[in-house]
Amino acid sequence: MSFKAPESLSEQIAQHIGDEIITGKLKSNERIQELKVAADLEVSRGSVREALLILESRHLIHILPRRGAMVAEINRKKVTALYEIYITLLIALASKVSLVWQPGQLDPLTEQLQKIKDTATGSDPDAAQKVVNAGFDLMRMAYPIVENPYLESILEDLQPAIHRAYHMALMADPTALVYSLTFFGKLFEGIVKRDVIVVEKAMNDYGDHLLSIMMDALDN
Amino acid sequence: MSFKAPESLSEQIAQHIGDEIITGKLKSNERIQELKVAADLEVSRGSVREALLILESRHLIHILPRRGAMVAEINRKKVTALYEIYITLLIALASKVSLVWQPGQLDPLTEQLQKIKDTATGSDPDAAQKVVNAGFDLMRMAYPIVENPYLESILEDLQPAIHRAYHMALMADPTALVYSLTFFGKLFEGIVKRDVIVVEKAMNDYGDHLLSIMMDALDN
Repeated sequence: MSFKAPESLSEQIAQHIGDEIITGKLKSNERIQELKVAADLEVSRGSVREALLILESRHLIHILPRRGAMVAEINRKKVTALYEIYITLLIALASKVSLVWQPGQLDPLTEQLQKIKDTATGSDPDAAQKVVNAGFDLMRMAYPIVENPYLESILEDLQPAIHRAYHMALMADPTALVYSLTFFGKLFEGIVKRDVIVVEKAMNDYGDHLLSIMMDALDN
Repeated sequence: MSFKAPESLSEQIAQHIGDEIITGKLKSNERIQELKVAADLEVSRGSVREALLILESRHLIHILPRRGAMVAEINRKKVTALYEIYITLLIALASKVSLVWQPGQLDPLTEQLQKIKDTATGSDPDAAQKVVNAGFDLMRMAYPIVENPYLESILEDLQPAIHRAYHMALMADPTALVYSLTFFGKLFEGIVKRDVIVVEKAMNDYGDHLLSIMMDALDN
């Protein structure tokens, strides 16, 4: 799904460094040196500085005055805080979808859900990664139904940090996906019935489950 | 209250332009020209570009590829969406405070609340603006109790847009403050009793009230 305009150079640099953080190639508290990145990618220092600001708004790095940029730490406390707010926002998103969906608007989400099920139960060796991405796409399909640009940009800014935590959890336990499907099913039932209580419970159960997987992964 | 490190040049530029948007000197959909800002403020174009990225993450401008930056529009739909998500996040913040506060931790908030009451009922001609700022400080005093850096940065990024809406509403109706005090009192009662239902209701009532004031202001 494409919902963004063609990317600027600084956005491309941000995505490149962001992927390295998400996949763990760049680790917690590692320094990111403007000059080195600029030389490695053959881009201007200004473009790197812009990319770092983008990455800071995506919660992947911290920029310290006169000390430069470093990869945001990921630990039990941070992941707990991240999931707490992410689930709160997903509940806001899904509750709003429950209340406002119009006939036909849920069709693409139903199709996407089926696609996720097929991928998860198939034999693709990259199934885990594909299901994660397809899950984010499912979230994005809710944006045009809800029409809240603030909620959308806040969720998009959290998505890379969530992806990073997810990546870490999937490295530790690829079976984490199985329960996601139960959750997506229940969530969808709640949305179709416009039952906000069911939606909220399904989302909280999902959050609790994911968080316990994250905690296990962080113990390793 | 100071909780930020000394500001970078791009942060200072962002605050300067941000204030012009908040106070309505720069209007919805107005273009912001990098070169003009750089010349006016005698700073480099690179610093202005960084400032614009900061302002975009604060929801005050949009940056369009190859078309530059423009002031985010403020209208009924946008303000409704903004308040919906802001109140959701304030409920998350205040509910968490209710659950986790330790003896002594609420004292600075009690003092701040008294200061807000004194300002609002005094004869200072700048009372309205001072109460708005003191209200934001009250929110910030909750951050160290809750210890969620994601919630904190999301709220800080929303604060300028909220301030902008508040400024607009206060221009239209300076009496908007009176009800705020009733609300703050009820909210605080809920927090002290650790009663999340009371907290949620007080916050939702406050949001509904503010939103109706915003809608009136936008009709003018």
